[in-house]
This record gives sequence, C-alpha cells and structure tokens, in this order.
Amino acid sequence: MTESVRSVDWVYGRLLIVDQTKLPGELILKEINSVEELVTSIKNLEIRGAPSIGVAGAMGVILAAKDFYRTQSVIQFLSDVEAIRSARPTAVNLAKCVNRMLDIKPQTVQTFTEEALRIRDEEIQACYDMGRRGADLLYSILGKTPLRLMTVCNTGGLAAVERGTALGVIQTVLEDGFLEEVFVMETRPLLQGARLTTWELDVMKAPYKLHVDSAGPALISQGRVDAVLVGADRVTVDLHVANKIGTYSLALACAKQEIPFIVVAPESTFDDSSKGEDVVIEFRAAEEVTTLPGVEVLNPAFDLTPPDLISAIVSDKRVII
Amino acid sequence: MTESVRSVDWVYGRLLIVDQTKLPGELILKEINSVEELVTSIKNLEIRGAPSIGVAGAMGVILAAKDFYRTQSVIQFLSDVEAIRSARPTAVNLAKCVNRMLDIKPQTVQTFTEEALRIRDEEIQACYDMGRRGADLLYSILGKTPLRLMTVCNTGGLAAVERGTALGVIQTVLEDGFLEEVFVMETRPLLQGARLTTWELDVMKAPYKLHVDSAGPALISQGRVDAVLVGADRVTVDLHVANKIGTYSLALACAKQEIPFIVVAPESTFDDSSKGEDVVIEFRAAEEVTTLPGVEVLNPAFDLTPPDLISAIVSDKRVII
Repeated sequence: MTESVRSVDWVYGRLLIVDQTKLPGELILKEINSVEELVTSIKNLEIRGAPSIGVAGAMGVILAAKDFYRTQSVIQFLSDVEAIRSARPTAVNLAKCVNRMLDIKPQTVQTFTEEALRIRDEEIQACYDMGRRGADLLYSILGKTPLRLMTVCNTGGLAAVERGTALGVIQTVLEDGFLEEVFVMETRPLLQGARLTTWELDVMKAPYKLHVDSAGPALISQGRVDAVLVGADRVTVDLHVANKIGTYSLALACAKQEIPFIVVAPESTFDDSSKGEDVVIEFRAAEEVTTLPGVEVLNPAFDLTPPDLISAIVSDKRVII
Repeated sequence: MTESVRSVDWVYGRLLIVDQTKLPGELILKEINSVEELVTSIKNLEIRGAPSIGVAGAMGVILAAKDFYRTQSVIQFLSDVEAIRSARPTAVNLAKCVNRMLDIKPQTVQTFTEEALRIRDEEIQACYDMGRRGADLLYSILGKTPLRLMTVCNTGGLAAVERGTALGVIQTVLEDGFLEEVFVMETRPLLQGARLTTWELDVMKAPYKLHVDSAGPALISQGRVDAVLVGADRVTVDLHVANKIGTYSLALACAKQEIPFIVVAPESTFDDSSKGEDVVIEFRAAEEVTTLPGVEVLNPAFDLTPPDLISAIVSDKRVII
C-alpha cells in the first residue's frame, strides 16, 4: 500500500485541516476554531475538493453546536449552519453533509461528533471502493497493461479526506503495478494540479509529467494517453458532470480520439434534485487570473460535461455506463 | 481607422523590434545589432508570431550581408543564415523568408534591404487583405450583427508586423462597427493572450474579457461565443494547422457547438512541402511551465488541428472552405 494524506480530520476534539494553499512548499496542519474560520478556509481554498469540503462542513456543525450549548442562541446556530452550507455553491456534498448532520436525533455535541466521524469514515471507505472499481473498469476496457492516465485539478487525498476519487483510482492502478505514467493538467488559475497533484504523486512515488491545460487535448490527440480520469463537484440526475474548468475540453478530446473519459465520484456527489441546466457555475475573483490593472476577466471555476461525452461514471456503489 | 502597432521594422539602416517580453508593462523599442542578437531575441520570444519572425529573419539577412562585405567570410555568412533559419522550428515563414532573400540577384546590401522591405510591405498588405476577407466571411455566415469572437495567443500587430492575422480580422470587425466583445485565452505558459492581446485590444479600444485557457471550450459550450478566430504557425499541404497550444481544444469545442472555427494566415504561412504528419512540434523548456524543483514537465508549444475541425482558412489571397 502506498502512502496517503488525510486532508481533514477530527482529532482529540479539534478540527484539523491541511492548509492546501501552503503546498507544495510546506505541509501545515491548521486548527479550525470557529465556524467563521472554517468558512474563510473553504472560501480561500485552504480546504477544497467536494468530499473534503463535505466532511469539513459536517465537522463545522460540531463547532456550531458547541457554541449553541454555550450561548443558547438558536438564531446564531442557524446562521452558522447556513454560512457553512453556502461557503461554496457548486459542491453539492457540502449542503448534503450539513443537512445530514441536522437530521440526527437526539442532537448533542456527542451525537453530532459521532455523525461527522461516520461521514468521514464513509468518505474514506468510498475512496477505497471507487479506486478498486475504477481500476477494474480500466483493465476491463484496456487490459492489464501499463496505463498512461491523464487527470485535472486535484482529486487525491487532499480533495477527499484520504486517497481521493480520480487520483484514488490512479493510486490503485499504481499499487496493482499497471501505472506507466500520469499526465497532470496544471489547472489554472489556482494550479491545483501543478501544486497539489504533483505533490501527492511524489508522496506515492508515481511517475508523472506536468503540462499546461491547453496541452491536455493536444497530447490526447497525439495518442499519448490511454484514458482520462476526473472527479466531480456535482453529478446531476440527468448525468451532467460539473467539475473543475478544463474537464469539458478533455471530454471533447477523448470523444474525438475514442479513448475512455471516466468520472470518479462518490454517491455523496450525486445531486438528485438538479439537472444539467440547473447547475449554477461559480464565477470567482478576477485576481485569481491576473493582477494586471484594468483587464476585465471572466473566471468560471467549473464547467459542465454532458453525458454523451462521458464513457462511465464510477461511484463507490456502481458503475454507470 | 484604429491605432496599430508595428512589431518589427527597418528604420534608417537599423533593425528595430518591440521587445514583447516587456509588455504590457513597458513599450520598449530595441535595436538588433547582430545575427546573434536576433537569434537570441527570437528564441526568447522578444520577437514572436510567424509573420513578424519571418520579416525579422529577412532583415537579419541584411545584417549577415553587411558582415560578409566587411569580413568576406562565406562560411560565416552561411552559418549566420542557417542560425536565423533555424531559430524557431515550427514557423515556416522564417525559413521561407530567409530562402527568398538568398534567391535575389545581384546580392548587395542595397538589394537585400530592398527585398526585406518588400517582404515587410507584403506582410502588412496581407494583413489588411486578410482582415477584410475574414470580416466579410464572418458577416456572410453570421450576418452584420454584433459579434462575440474568441481568440488564442497574440495574432495582432505584434505577431505580424502590423494589424495581424486573426486579431487583424477582429480589428476590421471593430472598425466596421460589428464587434460586441472579444474573449481572450490567456495562453499559458507564456501568457501572450493575457500580456499582449489585451494590450493590443486596449490600444484599439476594443471591449474584451480575459479567461484561463480551459475556460475557452467551456464558454463556447455555454453559447457565449459566435466564432473563434486563430492564426497559424504553419498550414500544411493537406490543410492541417500548426498553431499555439490550445488551438486544437477550441476547434473541438466549435465543432461540438457548430459555430465557425476560422484560421487566418497569410500565404507565406502555407508550407507546400509538408503534411500534417510531418510537422515536428516544438517542445520548450520546463521552466516556462513551473520552477518547482523536481517536477517533470512536458511543454509542447504548438498543437495540430486537422482539416475536419476547421470551418475555413482565410489568407490574403483566398478563402479555403
């Protein structure tokens, strides 16, 4: 088994996260002491990745509950919960995990904590299950042969508590002995691929090459890639996939080259209440793209890939083809 | 008529270029005093864009000829010419312009200079002709209506002596009063879109939005773009187009969305001696992508778009559909 990273955890009554804005330079564990700090951490991408955000959100409810039992302010508690729920709009896990926390009975700090840890453990187990299922799917399509796999953004242990989604599949392929190399999209504007995925691949000692995002479709067209694996911030009921900007361009290139384009996402990422047309794409600050004065910027954080471009969606429970 | 930029010129016996690595911060005219300085300027992208490089290469032959009439060293002259010809491998203009210079008779500094100025003037005229032809093609497809146009890299006056290729068409549409806005790919790794195209659009007072390269295909899929216009570093005899990395991803997105994907390139960019399969893609230094230690990088500067993804190629002499 290769080494892994745990991006968010509840340790001795404290919420700890890996501050991902400091990677790859420094591995800093940061304690989150309040709902306000948590919301700031999510907005600033210190903690990121749909499953990690969901677990952090669940643990945030513990912090809100502790405050409530001290202040007895229902209004403050509800406002805290709403602040957590809406810290990132596109990731459906966050709202789902927060709602699940509020559904438990009786509601004590103890029961909230137990539920948050259950959510954490389920996400970790889901990653192991997705990794196995995704790797087996690749072998069934491409054979048990050295595989050249491309991925975008960061979908490893940093994004999903431990091991991750798309990168968890890649880690399983590595452990199975069938990973030739990984092509890593740098993932502008915030370079999660260049900063985080390369760091995780270094930790697990996997061979990889980093490239600019525009090179992804081109390298696919040159026959250098056997399959593309991506995560998802949201899978809609009609199987549209909202994921990091750049995902759609890879799906187009895979369809043209007739190679598998596989989405890896836990069931918690599936949103049965929205269709593709309902997904509101988050536009982020211009300063992420450029600090040149006077330049007008459009900075969509996600794009939407339609089902006709997706070969398969692998979850912890099923493969949808 | 809107304001324009001349990226390379021969003024009072001196070769002057705009140092494009200093833009958008500073507009610096740099004098090139030797073949060695010219080759360094081309390699470092102080001067860039296939037509600009071609004209600069032709003017470089004047510098080599001046040296020859001083030193009488044929070996040095041939070595100088070869150094110019091979300063950038993908752009076919450069070799073509250098070869055309060597074909003139008689060969004096005077006749070399006249030929280089003829090449310069032909490139400028070609840009005016392409701009008119490209704009008329857009109106014939989309109507005389406000147009939302996307482009990659820099294909303006900086890339093509004056006005440019794809950006020259956009400038013509602006002057005709039919430009709604321009979507500018930032164009990693060297950000020619973010640094140079936005600067040129500011000079000509055109409305635009800058975005990361991955957002190009996504914005097209959202119906925000009416047509994509790109330049070319080389058009092969079987009509494959080698152009800045990212071009291929836009062509895929246009085909999926069924909007025009138009290549704008002067006849000097057409290479009748090579097919798509013959094009050698230039891989550039890893440091352009990242300076993180120990990260292995693949940095293709160009990609190749096949003819089935191209709606039309507009040159100064014809429209190929």
